[in-house]
Amino acid sequence: MARAIALACDGVDSNAGGPFGSVIVSNGRIIGEGVNRVTSTNDPTAHAEIVAIREACRTLDTFQLDGCVVYASCEPCPMCLGAIYWARADRIYIACTRDDAAAAGFDDEFIYEEIASPFEKRRIPIRQMMRDEGLRAFAAWNAKPDKIEY
Amino acid sequence: MARAIALACDGVDSNAGGPFGSVIVSNGRIIGEGVNRVTSTNDPTAHAEIVAIREACRTLDTFQLDGCVVYASCEPCPMCLGAIYWARADRIYIACTRDDAAAAGFDDEFIYEEIASPFEKRRIPIRQMMRDEGLRAFAAWNAKPDKIEY
Repeated sequence: MARAIALACDGVDSNAGGPFGSVIVSNGRIIGEGVNRVTSTNDPTAHAEIVAIREACRTLDTFQLDGCVVYASCEPCPMCLGAIYWARADRIYIACTRDDAAAAGFDDEFIYEEIASPFEKRRIPIRQMMRDEGLRAFAAWNAKPDKIEY
Repeated sequence: MARAIALACDGVDSNAGGPFGSVIVSNGRIIGEGVNRVTSTNDPTAHAEIVAIREACRTLDTFQLDGCVVYASCEPCPMCLGAIYWARADRIYIACTRDDAAAAGFDDEFIYEEIASPFEKRRIPIRQMMRDEGLRAFAAWNAKPDKIEY
């Protein structure tokens, strides 16, 4: 966690982006590190945890991080928490929380509220169209004999 | 949406990854496209919407997609919905839903449930440590005169 926090502070100093750092540990060894790079790389998905997960997956040559532990200087936002679930890490340690992030002007808590809201109450409207056509992609997937599930 | 669905079907055929496609539109023009590439690139974050958002941001040379519309062949998972909120797109159109994804074996609905659960009920445990040290990163951010907010 000390390393994740140091990355967060370094990222502020170096103008990488927001004050967030993360490391991924496997068998007591750091296999991925990330610092928020949203503004320096023009990538709104370049949060510390996303950057660290991508690096850890490159290190292990896999798309699954089972057995790994995520350290994050702040509670992951819904995007990053979703990424941790898709990577299927074992556990998460955090230093600060979404409330600390909100106090510093970050939208984490707002996005948590939006994701839990029904479509009709959301601030970014979401509408359905062409479901029958869309189901064709799932039909192709279900019929595919050599698919790699994740 | 027809293009997003075509990308989803193409991705299944070409073994890119799961059956999901997305496009980002600005002023009636496609500025980013994505197909799920999780298994082909060993990147659990390479969902169609994430890939499309990153491409759209490269196209516009920005980390914000205000004024843009997201078309997704299936309702975004929490990770991708979070990314759309961070990018601040204007609206979202979807063809299939999280229930259609669950019926095809994908964890979207499970992750929505986990994100809305209190820490102590989650399947991936989350614990807090070293908050005082973590707050130093926010203090550095708050004190930074030339920070770029996002």
